[in-house]
Amino acid sequence: GFARLDLHRAKRVGFPEVIYGEGKTVEQVVMIFERLVTNHNVVLATRVTEEMGRAVTAKFPSAEYNKRARTILWKKNSKPVHQGYIAVVCAGTSDLPVAEEAAVTAQAMGNETKLICDVGVAGLHRLIDKIDLIRKANVIIVVAGMEGALPSVVSGLVDKPVIAVPTSVGYGANFGGLSALLGMLNSCASGVSVVNIDNGFGAGYQAGLINKGMDPSYKGE
Amino acid sequence: GFARLDLHRAKRVGFPEVIYGEGKTVEQVVMIFERLVTNHNVVLATRVTEEMGRAVTAKFPSAEYNKRARTILWKKNSKPVHQGYIAVVCAGTSDLPVAEEAAVTAQAMGNETKLICDVGVAGLHRLIDKIDLIRKANVIIVVAGMEGALPSVVSGLVDKPVIAVPTSVGYGANFGGLSALLGMLNSCASGVSVVNIDNGFGAGYQAGLINKGMDPSYKGE
Amino acid sequence: GFARLDLHRAKRVGFPEVIYGEGKTVEQVVMIFERLVTNHNVVLATRVTEEMGRAVTAKFPSAEYNKRARTILWKKNSKPVHQGYIAVVCAGTSDLPVAEEAAVTAQAMGNETKLICDVGVAGLHRLIDKIDLIRKANVIIVVAGMEGALPSVVSGLVDKPVIAVPTSVGYGANFGGLSALLGMLNSCASGVSVVNIDNGFGAGYQAGLINKGMDPSYKGE
Amino acid sequence: GFARLDLHRAKRVGFPEVIYGEGKTVEQVVMIFERLVTNHNVVLATRVTEEMGRAVTAKFPSAEYNKRARTILWKKNSKPVHQGYIAVVCAGTSDLPVAEEAAVTAQAMGNETKLICDVGVAGLHRLIDKIDLIRKANVIIVVAGMEGALPSVVSGLVDKPVIAVPTSVGYGANFGGLSALLGMLNSCASGVSVVNIDNGFGAGYQAGLINKGMDPSYKGE
Amino acid sequence: GFARLDLHRAKRVGFPEVIYGEGKTVEQVVMIFERLVTNHNVVLATRVTEEMGRAVTAKFPSAEYNKRARTILWKKNSKPVHQGYIAVVCAGTSDLPVAEEAAVTAQAMGNETKLICDVGVAGLHRLIDKIDLIRKANVIIVVAGMEGALPSVVSGLVDKPVIAVPTSVGYGANFGGLSALLGMLNSCASGVSVVNIDNGFGAGYQAGLINKGMDPSYKGE
Amino acid sequence: GFARLDLHRAKRVGFPEVIYGEGKTVEQVVMIFERLVTNHNVVLATRVTEEMGRAVTAKFPSAEYNKRARTILWKKNSKPVHQGYIAVVCAGTSDLPVAEEAAVTAQAMGNETKLICDVGVAGLHRLIDKIDLIRKANVIIVVAGMEGALPSVVSGLVDKPVIAVPTSVGYGANFGGLSALLGMLNSCASGVSVVNIDNGFGAGYQAGLINKGMDPSYKGE
Amino acid sequence: GFARLDLHRAKRVGFPEVIYGEGKTVEQVVMIFERLVTNHNVVLATRVTEEMGRAVTAKFPSAEYNKRARTILWKKNSKPVHQGYIAVVCAGTSDLPVAEEAAVTAQAMGNETKLICDVGVAGLHRLIDKIDLIRKANVIIVVAGMEGALPSVVSGLVDKPVIAVPTSVGYGANFGGLSALLGMLNSCASGVSVVNIDNGFGAGYQAGLINKGMDPSYKGE
Amino acid sequence: GFARLDLHRAKRVGFPEVIYGEGKTVEQVVMIFERLVTNHNVVLATRVTEEMGRAVTAKFPSAEYNKRARTILWKKNSKPVHQGYIAVVCAGTSDLPVAEEAAVTAQAMGNETKLICDVGVAGLHRLIDKIDLIRKANVIIVVAGMEGALPSVVSGLVDKPVIAVPTSVGYGANFGGLSALLGMLNSCASGVSVVNIDNGFGAGYQAGLINKGMDPSYKGE
Ligand SMILES: Nc1ncnc2c1ncn2[C@@H]1O[C@H](COP(=O)(O)O)[C@@H](O)[C@H]1O
Ligand SMILES: Nc1ncnc2c1ncn2[C@@H]1O[C@H](COP(=O)(O)O)[C@@H](O)[C@H]1O
Ligand SMILES: Nc1ncnc2c1ncn2[C@@H]1O[C@H](COP(=O)(O)O)[C@@H](O)[C@H]1O
Ligand SMILES: Nc1ncnc2c1ncn2[C@@H]1O[C@H](COP(=O)(O)O)[C@@H](O)[C@H]1O
Ligand SMILES: [Mg+2]
Ligand SMILES: [Mg+2]
Ligand SMILES: [Mg+2]
Ligand SMILES: [Mg+2]
Ligand SMILES: [Mg+2]
Ligand SMILES: [Mg+2]
Ligand SMILES: [Mg+2]
Ligand SMILES: [Mg+2]
Repeated sequence: GFARLDLHRAKRVGFPEVIYGEGKTVEQVVMIFERLVTNHNVVLATRVTEEMGRAVTAKFPSAEYNKRARTILWKKNSKPVHQGYIAVVCAGTSDLPVAEEAAVTAQAMGNETKLICDVGVAGLHRLIDKIDLIRKANVIIVVAGMEGALPSVVSGLVDKPVIAVPTSVGYGANFGGLSALLGMLNSCASGVSVVNIDNGFGAGYQAGLINKGMDPSYKGE
Repeated sequence: GFARLDLHRAKRVGFPEVIYGEGKTVEQVVMIFERLVTNHNVVLATRVTEEMGRAVTAKFPSAEYNKRARTILWKKNSKPVHQGYIAVVCAGTSDLPVAEEAAVTAQAMGNETKLICDVGVAGLHRLIDKIDLIRKANVIIVVAGMEGALPSVVSGLVDKPVIAVPTSVGYGANFGGLSALLGMLNSCASGVSVVNIDNGFGAGYQAGLINKGMDPSYKGE
Repeated sequence: GFARLDLHRAKRVGFPEVIYGEGKTVEQVVMIFERLVTNHNVVLATRVTEEMGRAVTAKFPSAEYNKRARTILWKKNSKPVHQGYIAVVCAGTSDLPVAEEAAVTAQAMGNETKLICDVGVAGLHRLIDKIDLIRKANVIIVVAGMEGALPSVVSGLVDKPVIAVPTSVGYGANFGGLSALLGMLNSCASGVSVVNIDNGFGAGYQAGLINKGMDPSYKGE
Repeated sequence: GFARLDLHRAKRVGFPEVIYGEGKTVEQVVMIFERLVTNHNVVLATRVTEEMGRAVTAKFPSAEYNKRARTILWKKNSKPVHQGYIAVVCAGTSDLPVAEEAAVTAQAMGNETKLICDVGVAGLHRLIDKIDLIRKANVIIVVAGMEGALPSVVSGLVDKPVIAVPTSVGYGANFGGLSALLGMLNSCASGVSVVNIDNGFGAGYQAGLINKGMDPSYKGE
Repeated sequence: GFARLDLHRAKRVGFPEVIYGEGKTVEQVVMIFERLVTNHNVVLATRVTEEMGRAVTAKFPSAEYNKRARTILWKKNSKPVHQGYIAVVCAGTSDLPVAEEAAVTAQAMGNETKLICDVGVAGLHRLIDKIDLIRKANVIIVVAGMEGALPSVVSGLVDKPVIAVPTSVGYGANFGGLSALLGMLNSCASGVSVVNIDNGFGAGYQAGLINKGMDPSYKGE
Repeated sequence: GFARLDLHRAKRVGFPEVIYGEGKTVEQVVMIFERLVTNHNVVLATRVTEEMGRAVTAKFPSAEYNKRARTILWKKNSKPVHQGYIAVVCAGTSDLPVAEEAAVTAQAMGNETKLICDVGVAGLHRLIDKIDLIRKANVIIVVAGMEGALPSVVSGLVDKPVIAVPTSVGYGANFGGLSALLGMLNSCASGVSVVNIDNGFGAGYQAGLINKGMDPSYKGE
Repeated sequence: GFARLDLHRAKRVGFPEVIYGEGKTVEQVVMIFERLVTNHNVVLATRVTEEMGRAVTAKFPSAEYNKRARTILWKKNSKPVHQGYIAVVCAGTSDLPVAEEAAVTAQAMGNETKLICDVGVAGLHRLIDKIDLIRKANVIIVVAGMEGALPSVVSGLVDKPVIAVPTSVGYGANFGGLSALLGMLNSCASGVSVVNIDNGFGAGYQAGLINKGMDPSYKGE
Repeated sequence: GFARLDLHRAKRVGFPEVIYGEGKTVEQVVMIFERLVTNHNVVLATRVTEEMGRAVTAKFPSAEYNKRARTILWKKNSKPVHQGYIAVVCAGTSDLPVAEEAAVTAQAMGNETKLICDVGVAGLHRLIDKIDLIRKANVIIVVAGMEGALPSVVSGLVDKPVIAVPTSVGYGANFGGLSALLGMLNSCASGVSVVNIDNGFGAGYQAGLINKGMDPSYKGE
């Protein structure tokens, strides 16, 4: 085959290999999906096209295709989720696809998520309105483009870890997300760590790992 | 001489040429200062060393050397200032030298300034405490390093123009002020324009021009 | 809904939230436009496609679609404009879309604008011909690509604030507008502040705020 | 005073403001340290010089100055630490100052740390020797310069969150830590989030927040 | 003609000029291919389209078009290959086109190659499984995108030269392959040299030159 | 010896090798100077320290050390210069060392130069005052830092080739001369070519070559 | 009209405004072409599409459209050219469009050109074969992509000014021509000045100006 | 101790760990040197200061300190070297320290080296004079700063692998060696691979590995 799947991964790191759809053919995605379904209890594909979504759900009707998040998620049985929830906070509506990719990933790992959208720093009252919901989360994912200032502001108001996701939303001197990335890396607030530009998956995964670790009833995979 | 002063400038743009101390010798600064004093009602030097401060004030006792702002300011007579005031807001204590350069420049142009310091976005209540003072200003200069998020937050709370000054404060991926500069240029809030990194002078000048124009009693130079 | 509008914004900053068309569907733009029309006296959308233009003006016949500026503007009643005018000066014909976006934005905020086009620094006499018109403005927006030298030259000839807009016009080592952006940030002339590359909206908004503040008859929103 | 301390911070985010020594005078550091000691149970200063270390410990003999980490730490009483430990893994000996800054910060927040040093990817057996100690940690901080590959390798072997710290160690095309930073942001392994170049403090803080949250006996500050 | 072929090259550097298909028309490629066939024993074209593949193999049925490698290779007679083999190791399946371009190029120069695929550093056991095969090679080509960490890990396990090829695989802060390129240039392991991003040809050529030199039975062209 | 001098160069390119002082010891500069004096009619050293200046002029009293230009120039006999002159125009006083390096180099090649200083674009009348002197030159060197706008303005007013020299004068987003360099490369005026940042030598040499070629009485070296 | 033509330019700088086709409509190009034909003896358009070529030559049959150079050139009468010739040297066949743009521009200004193609530094004998033709030119334009080494090599062999044009030919770490641009700016050979990436027009214009100035029979426009 | 030496390395990769002096204290270097001497037949330290050189040779009189290369080399017994030699070619005299670091490293690995210096591309005849010596080498290291063109020229004249080392020699737009690095990565000649800026050690090591592999009498460590 064209790919040597890392089937041992779930043992080692607690979650099976995730399919990255970009640059793969529909057939390849279906084939890998099938092989992972045979070996694991949960299978996740990200950055998939609508065509991939249709092809996989045709074969695995219990798989769920999420158009905005560009994900396909399949789970053997609905395991109860870990205690507490992960807040996914996003600055503008254009950041939503990245935010939803983060949410689906965290859910795939057995976590509850709450999405708080369109609370950018140019209208602080919108954030303040939602701050209690955010504060009560165990982990907070903050997604923002342009100047990427939202993680600093959120982190200054809570005592929970913030996973910051810069997006490529913006134009001109945003240089494809560089402005938001640098903003988040240089946050003057403590308790912020950063993933790659537009990497909703990476943020959802990291938040999922943290929340799982915070669950006292969880005994390891 | 080594420099062709633009003595005509005050006529043309409303303020005489300002001495940029960087890279000049003490003697050169004194000589140019003298020549400008002869021709104008106000003389400003920026980026001056302590030695330049001592040498100029020795010759012109009415000149004022500001160590933190690294400026020397001389005025013929204490002209009344323009109506209203300019708020100079700064994020951290390390941004103060730039903020004070801005304040001295705006004062040199006949404006009142109010300095609001250490109100970075990691502790929003500090900014909220001062928001009325900021809102009542005619123009607001916001000085910040690191992620440079403060101008976005301030601008979302006021209906006045914000002049944003990125500083080189920070380390690592701040790349000498680039992170703050890009953050400010990509501000999601409207009503923010930006000057060069650490350019307190430029911000004070721009704010001064604007406030002067807002003074209905002002009839032009 | 997919977006949490900041309806409180007009109160806070003096102008309602502006619709950014990029990346939105035609339906989303129409829906948001409608909701804003219900709540405000003026509604502005920028970066809209022709299809958005047609869809919105079909529903709101009094809205004006400007193809070159890529804007849609709707106003409840033709409020008299603020005193004085804003000059929008642009270097080359390719900079026109950005210049017009600036002009429409300033007009939306109740300002008169005058457009002075194709006066780049390679033929100074074209600028000199128009300098009186520029000097009499309250605020000057200068739009230029390539080396972005025009704001420095203009600013050295006037005693009014210059808002500089770098454009992505050019090729090769212009790096998508970086050359003009850096040129403007490093202007050797005082009284220049800068907005993002191609951000005509931001410049028009900043100039509009300043001119509104300069209007002695204006009492606040 | 020159600084408006954010004394309310401990309430809001669970840990008092941390003194950043860079660019401050010895007197300023002593003065702020004193004020924080009066208001809090723990005080931490980072990026301090030896002179600052001497001055502060002279006044507060129970404060501990760590030369390699460039920190001063003062604690009112030795509170028992949270359950489990944080592993601080570092690639080369030159990365030690950053690793120790991370460790001291995590300790200041009430966490136990274990330092595993000089296990860079060019000699994998060194890492494999220590992998059990790393796997049993609740959170793992990985510090590396040059190509910054260590977090990817570690993260592929554990089911715990990895906080990656790029360092400026290296020369030439490392561009002051950029190579390690980009390497970590583009990690092909999941469960890695990144802080600023050389920001041991930020990593220790984030890991500390996470480990605190994982402690089932912890009830909030 | 439009091109001055360097027909003397095979004499000088031991291998004839290679056709770079990018930006050429199908006709140009066929014409140059023909001319080279007349003058040499082996002809290689890289970065060719399917159409070029069809056109050339129609005319030269013994030429081999490789779709994934985007190459066309023609050899006069099947000369025996040099002793030993070159290992072509690649991190992920998306790096395969570059890896195969490297393999075809090395083969064209009379070398045997072995392809070891999908052994990225996030699942080390996959690499360890294959390490003997890699160790026994005379030269090792390592192809990787994203953080480009694989060459460091491989090089630390073998005593053979590693030619590293960064690929543009990834997104966001990979900046078109810059992250992998910088990672490889800053490798903490010795015995790694690097070619341009996505330059499989260059790596195959360099490895081919080295392996040829290592063949004691080889007497020069 | 440590250096293989290119003594054949004067034959080939019309001017002997020039000593680049940076990074050389005083002894090395003296030794090379001596060797070149033996073989040529003119010897030039650039980027020399004061100590080098003293050491060389001690040995060769007819050599001329120019402190501001950081050059040493020795000529066998005062050959008459080529017809016409080269204008060296510079924007600010801080650009003078680069401008003088250019002038000395052009003089060394047998050209007359005229220096026109402190005529930056922020005060156009200063340039206009001198425009006739500039227009009558055969070649024009324009030296400027910050936004580097002066070559565009000059080139739009003359029908002679302009050699533009960006300088590192400025701070912040000038990025060590990058802003001026990009500005000059993107000049909207025709007839501008550019040399490296601070490379007065390169500009003087290029202008010298051109003016020599324009001299109808010149018959080649 | 949409454009304020600089009709005065031919007087001032010796050549009329040149039409830059990029981003203009076919109608705009035809209209401007017409207006320039009415006012001048020569009209040049660059970066034109085939459609523009057809439309203009339909209206002005004596205009010449050059597909590879992407130019349209119209001349009133065939004025005799200036003495001597300009060599246009290019490294690879992919650099030809830029080289021909340079040649057409120089011809438009009344100069003879000679094109020497495909003489890149990887096969020096190709350059050596042509060196006499190059040496006898008055000015030499050198066009190269990738590492941009050709101008250094040429300049070390001639005593004439070299105008270097970096092209965007290449991939990966050529960063759109940056590698060639930096290579040329840092040339270790003297007598090289550089224009923007892919700016054949700029090089042709500069070389044209120089050659015109070298023509002793030329008396000015 | 502060460092976990990789004593197993010589077994694994054929050469013991090399001491990188930068950032270490004299005591640390002496201590590590001692420990390596006890365990290996050859010990190499690079980037050492004169003080380190004195301290180590005081303790190990048979160790050789090379001031220009900044290396210390100790060998148990003078093992005969591998067959053939490595040519170390360098462009300018300022590149010598990097070239000598490469030579010492290759010698430490049991190879003969020949240094060919000051043969930059601006005077090709200097290179041509030495080409036979270069052609007969088994591997060629080429060291160059500024535009880094030398590896392309050399590689086009030989049938041996070229290891290219960019140096930080130059100023302005060389950006600390970036120009040479990009030039070498984009070489139009085949058979060039590149190491980090100023990384003479890396080049010497890679060339040493290759030459060792080419030695038919060599049977492995
Ligand atoms: N701190 C500053 N930052 C930037 N520009 C300045 C500053 N201070 C003065 N200037 C400008 O520098 C010009 C003088 O430059 P120079 O002729 O080199 O002394 C003045 O006319 C100001 O426009
Ligand atoms: N080593 C460090 N790196 C980054 N930020 C720090 C560091 N140490 C302290 N800080 C932050 O700097 C803030 C204090 O900054 P300042 O008000 O300028 O003293 C603290 O609240 C911390 O959030
Ligand atoms: N895939 C490739 N990547 C980089 N260089 C190549 C590639 N294929 C061929 N070349 C080089 O490109 C040269 C031909 O370039 P050209 O004359 O533009 O066709 C050949 O001699 C090779 O050295
Ligand atoms: N100021 C300068 N900037 C750039 N290149 C220079 C300068 N001065 C001399 N050179 C060049 O440096 C070469 C000598 O370099 P080197 O062999 O290292 O001494 C000369 O042949 C000149 O081409
Ligand atoms: Mg919104
Ligand atoms: Mg503070
Ligand atoms: Mg025009
Ligand atoms: Mg070590
Ligand atoms: Mg895989
Ligand atoms: Mg001046
Ligand atoms: Mg070719
Ligand atoms: Mg030399």
